Amino acid sequence: MEKKGFVQVYTGDGKGKTTASIGQAIRAKGHKLKVCFVYFFKNPKAVPYGELKVLKGLGIETVGFVPHHPHFNKNIPAEGIREECLEALEAIKEIFKKGYDMLILDEILIALRDGFLKEGEILELLATKPESLEIVLTGRGATRKIIEKADLVTEMKKIKHPFSRGIKGKEGIEY
Amino acid sequence: MEKKGFVQVYTGDGKGKTTASIGQAIRAKGHKLKVCFVYFFKNPKAVPYGELKVLKGLGIETVGFVPHHPHFNKNIPAEGIREECLEALEAIKEIFKKGYDMLILDEILIALRDGFLKEGEILELLATKPESLEIVLTGRGATRKIIEKADLVTEMKKIKHPFSRGIKGKEGIEY
Repeated sequence: MEKKGFVQVYTGDGKGKTTASIGQAIRAKGHKLKVCFVYFFKNPKAVPYGELKVLKGLGIETVGFVPHHPHFNKNIPAEGIREECLEALEAIKEIFKKGYDMLILDEILIALRDGFLKEGEILELLATKPESLEIVLTGRGATRKIIEKADLVTEMKKIKHPFSRGIKGKEGIEY
Repeated sequence: MEKKGFVQVYTGDGKGKTTASIGQAIRAKGHKLKVCFVYFFKNPKAVPYGELKVLKGLGIETVGFVPHHPHFNKNIPAEGIREECLEALEAIKEIFKKGYDMLILDEILIALRDGFLKEGEILELLATKPESLEIVLTGRGATRKIIEKADLVTEMKKIKHPFSRGIKGKEGIEY
């Protein structure tokens, strides 16, 4: 791996953001890079995420923060979420010290979009990442400044999605 | 998995199409689905694709067709490529019979874009797939009719890419 790690951003309303970040983890793992997969707003106790099982099995570190999102669980007060997100940022800064080659922050941009994190907080996180660390951010809600800071940005644009026809997520496809 | 397998299409000029298809394979594998990853225009003898190594290691069938693309290798005559692509279509129809839950056809749409396959040939392939098979097509060059036939389509739109600044593909990131 080259000296400089890039900041990659996968945003937009189409399917493929988390999916691409999983692929990126796998590709890096294939070259024996040290990978950490951090995910936001996922509760593996409630949903059997197929990808997390496989990533773990391959020796990729997986770490979850803020398992509940108030949008999906009305019983969760939104107030606590900001604190959980700030704690996650601190924990990510600790992860920075562990010598990973690639760090994925899956759905962190949802925290930004929904006001649980501020743009400046994510920019500061990116500014303090180790030089050689490749970092991958996913989620709807990338801002102009985050795009400016990133080296590689893809917008996953929904052209067609079965959810729009009221079809539910399928095991092995959506989780 | 539900009875009906979808046709998924990842197209557009941004990074994330093949990467998402790898993620999709991993997710399916996490649910013990039977997955086959078919790739076009890749020569693993020349490029050490990290992802192929990992997919194989997980017991995912990987099959390559048409290893050379005339765009990247000027010594390859374009005439033979159409025949190789047609042979690939026949082989894929054989793969249809093997009871896979998910079949990825990575970069098959490049064959279409570059005139090695015709739109009607790919539409016919999709029309003959087993009902329950989830099929994933990637590559620039999805046509309107292929999008119509698909259940899920995401356009990966390049907002920013280091290649545009003349930076070369990095091991573990691009392959």
